[in-house]
Amino acid sequence: MIKLFHAPYSRSSSTVWLLEELGVPYQLDVVPIRATGGAPEGYREIQAHKKVPAVVLDGVTITERAAIALHLAESFPETGLAPRFGDPRRAAFLSWLVYSDAVLDPAITARLSDWSYVPLGVSFGTLDDAVRHVDRALSASPYLVGDRFTAADVQIGAMLHYAVSIVEAITPTPAMHAYLERVRARPAFQRREQIDRELAGA
Amino acid sequence: MIKLFHAPYSRSSSTVWLLEELGVPYQLDVVPIRATGGAPEGYREIQAHKKVPAVVLDGVTITERAAIALHLAESFPETGLAPRFGDPRRAAFLSWLVYSDAVLDPAITARLSDWSYVPLGVSFGTLDDAVRHVDRALSASPYLVGDRFTAADVQIGAMLHYAVSIVEAITPTPAMHAYLERVRARPAFQRREQIDRELAGA
Repeated sequence: MIKLFHAPYSRSSSTVWLLEELGVPYQLDVVPIRATGGAPEGYREIQAHKKVPAVVLDGVTITERAAIALHLAESFPETGLAPRFGDPRRAAFLSWLVYSDAVLDPAITARLSDWSYVPLGVSFGTLDDAVRHVDRALSASPYLVGDRFTAADVQIGAMLHYAVSIVEAITPTPAMHAYLERVRARPAFQRREQIDRELAGA
Repeated sequence: MIKLFHAPYSRSSSTVWLLEELGVPYQLDVVPIRATGGAPEGYREIQAHKKVPAVVLDGVTITERAAIALHLAESFPETGLAPRFGDPRRAAFLSWLVYSDAVLDPAITARLSDWSYVPLGVSFGTLDDAVRHVDRALSASPYLVGDRFTAADVQIGAMLHYAVSIVEAITPTPAMHAYLERVRARPAFQRREQIDRELAGA
């Protein structure tokens, strides 16, 4: 059984969405990241920063959203959510998975935090460049790597949903707006919303 | 022929190191990221933030260091630098690859930039937690995912080399110090240093 360490409405919500897309059984272990002092110290055995998500699969722990998404999607190849090695979409798929964690997330935080920096010196560059990059991809095809939804759309889609609709750090372009409508209409996205709502109200 | 878009002594230096580890032919295309105004605008066709590295392989562009490292290592499976799907080391290998870009790099930048933030709200958390996480792994085994050097050691090794010896953002633990000695002794690391030195002096 897959175990997901999760907190409602957090960075692990995209992993709930992905598990719902995969349609496989999993167990949720709710981590009190917002408690005073954060999660219990013992949780560092699973996640060194006491953050979510973390996943245990076949007795092995995996952390970092892009790594989790790739590993889960590759564990269920019949779902087609990860283009396989040899598929010409694979390079872009991997680039987008990492981009979500390494560029989009910190660039959104930098905007919200009003940090000032020289883009050359900072790995994640500027949010304006990121918005143009995402917009360009979504203007060219309905999903990030073509006509078919992949795990990259879960990761980037969740980040855009957060940035556009929750914290309003990004003003959506028309292509982004249409994309968000498309991905938020997915049953797995809606099940994720219901799961988070129930957990948050519990 | 693999093409690497590179600038000497930059975030693409780890990709030079990896290509030297793989021992495959490649072409370097030097990008003037430090010129006034940065790289030419046309370079955004390759890399949306005008950053390095970017790699073109089989006519397809790939960006983000973790994605590049995984894709290159998987393209040459005989080198053994990427544990394959099914290998019990795969989950930790993927986690470390992403961790380098998504946690270690921005946490080092945050320290150097003196940004203040609440760790819970920021994807990359604190550099102190990262140092403890890396130290723990390197205290348990000579390389990040066991007894054998992988592409994760190139990515994390390059970040540690930068953070410890170039910008002095991290005071190395004994395990880190021994690890840096070990990875810097590799011929591929030394060829990378020579390539960067020649390009920087050119």
